[in-house]
Amino acid sequence: MSLDSLDTPCVLIDLDRVEANLKRAQDYADAHGLKLRPHIKTHKLPRFALRQIELGAVGVTCQKLGEAEVIADSGVEDIFLPYNILGERKLARLRALADRVRISVSADSKTTIDGLSGAFADAARPLPVLVECDTGMGRCGVQTPQEALALARAVYAAPGLVFAGLMTYPAIGEVEANAAWLAAAVALLKREGLPPRVVSNGGTPDMERAAEVAVATEHRPGTYIYLDRYQVAKGAGALDDCALTVLATVVSRPTENRAVIDAGSKALTSDTLGLDGFGLVLGYPDAVIRSLSEEHGVIDLSACKQKPAIGDRLRIVPNHACVVSNLFDKVTLVSGDRAVETIPVAARGRVD
Amino acid sequence: MSLDSLDTPCVLIDLDRVEANLKRAQDYADAHGLKLRPHIKTHKLPRFALRQIELGAVGVTCQKLGEAEVIADSGVEDIFLPYNILGERKLARLRALADRVRISVSADSKTTIDGLSGAFADAARPLPVLVECDTGMGRCGVQTPQEALALARAVYAAPGLVFAGLMTYPAIGEVEANAAWLAAAVALLKREGLPPRVVSNGGTPDMERAAEVAVATEHRPGTYIYLDRYQVAKGAGALDDCALTVLATVVSRPTENRAVIDAGSKALTSDTLGLDGFGLVLGYPDAVIRSLSEEHGVIDLSACKQKPAIGDRLRIVPNHACVVSNLFDKVTLVSGDRAVETIPVAARGRVD
Repeated sequence: MSLDSLDTPCVLIDLDRVEANLKRAQDYADAHGLKLRPHIKTHKLPRFALRQIELGAVGVTCQKLGEAEVIADSGVEDIFLPYNILGERKLARLRALADRVRISVSADSKTTIDGLSGAFADAARPLPVLVECDTGMGRCGVQTPQEALALARAVYAAPGLVFAGLMTYPAIGEVEANAAWLAAAVALLKREGLPPRVVSNGGTPDMERAAEVAVATEHRPGTYIYLDRYQVAKGAGALDDCALTVLATVVSRPTENRAVIDAGSKALTSDTLGLDGFGLVLGYPDAVIRSLSEEHGVIDLSACKQKPAIGDRLRIVPNHACVVSNLFDKVTLVSGDRAVETIPVAARGRVD
Repeated sequence: MSLDSLDTPCVLIDLDRVEANLKRAQDYADAHGLKLRPHIKTHKLPRFALRQIELGAVGVTCQKLGEAEVIADSGVEDIFLPYNILGERKLARLRALADRVRISVSADSKTTIDGLSGAFADAARPLPVLVECDTGMGRCGVQTPQEALALARAVYAAPGLVFAGLMTYPAIGEVEANAAWLAAAVALLKREGLPPRVVSNGGTPDMERAAEVAVATEHRPGTYIYLDRYQVAKGAGALDDCALTVLATVVSRPTENRAVIDAGSKALTSDTLGLDGFGLVLGYPDAVIRSLSEEHGVIDLSACKQKPAIGDRLRIVPNHACVVSNLFDKVTLVSGDRAVETIPVAARGRVD
């Protein structure tokens, strides 16, 4: 089917690039004796989760219970949920999930550990818990290896739980600091008789340096499957590796240097990630997507020699692919310029 | 039902505030002899569209065909779609809509007008078309009253179309410039024998000055139903008028001055609209939502005397309510601190 038959804006996923991106990362992991546990947040598609496992991933990562529930339904048997699960309702959902797949979670506080233990004290299988470490990102996580040890002991002592190791989502580019933090924590835990079975590191931007984090046993890249403008800027791939594009139509050319497309923040999101503009227009490298409202994107054509006309269709590499996946109920899988199939984004919008 | 029974993050809509906000705007419009044509993009809920009409609105505004299709299904009979509809597929959908509700559209180019005329040349009822005017916003629209006249003539001459008037979404705060632009265009059109029946003005921020745009016959406010942090900053209402909040849970307190909540950019969006931080935490006026990743919001508590604990629930007024509505499959209607009903956001995610 021709792409012309698609209504815009819509999301195109290049299957050949997806396959190449997945294989490249798995090959890297295999070559370095590292386990791969891809994050499904980028694609939110059961079929790609299954393909990641087929290629050698040990399991997948989901960021919310709702995502894990959808992915478990698809037949994936090993899911890591690196999140503090709190509250009766969520703990009951987690327990129900643990009854049907291998699931592990993270915790960075005694409060979280107490809640998990309460929910799993009478479970047939104990729940594996990894202690989350803030190795520089400044989000969740214990602040020091000593705190990691204290929480590891708390997990170890808690009925229904088993201490499985450490996890981090590191600060991008801070590979050495991340490696040093984790090495110190692992050494301390070993000294104290609690050697971590798993040390789970994350992120696509520093994936190609993952092996430098010597104590890490697994890596959780997400965006690597599609890549995006930000990842290209960070050197994680080339523009020609980007598998997700937004197809949009020029709906207005009010002035010589202004084009307006039917993709706004509801399609491209307001994420700039520090980049200039809201995406890269393929074929128009000098065009700048200057501003977005919900249903309009305003493109500055001042620097363009050729300028698109009303009705022309543009393919846009977004700044951040993961958030785009979350905005569309369906995506169209393509091979080259041919639409293969349009499928629902099964794990989209699973906010809780 | 208590709010404690809700899983977070979730969206709460305060019904009493909604009703007050709707009435206040309708009263203003009635007092000034202005027609109200609310934009449904903010709520995306059929029941509120119907309530807006019950209170006196002449119809509603939808921004995409997909939204209009959902709203038409709910029984609304008069819809304005201020968008350039282009391409065979969209034109066929528009024609199908016009067969069951009164629908009007905007156009800012001969290309759009030609397409519309082709689709409606053999229609039983001609399609009302408003010429979109860029009175300062810098998005779509003709650049001068002379261009507006030229397009009005093109609509007038096109089979299947009827020239219905002018529309603008003005630059915020530029009330005088907007009024002057439209007055000049109306005068020109009158002189040339094409008096506009409708002059449609838009936006919540300048709604209370809507009557100053003397030639406008109708106003299309959207966000007024919920208001948000941005609208409060612009003076469109008070914090206590804000009807949409995101309920989130503190999942981590890694340091003395950092709290992490389970609402990230998938719940609050990356829209800052020039504001500091990504929302206002009710009860913690000195807390700053400093950064968002998809599933985490990082709050800086440095300036707070009281600090929330892990497990505490926070209500957050987002920077931009409309984009939040688009992220959640369902919202919970509340009255005070009581959950009344959880309903699907029927027109959510209608990107095309």
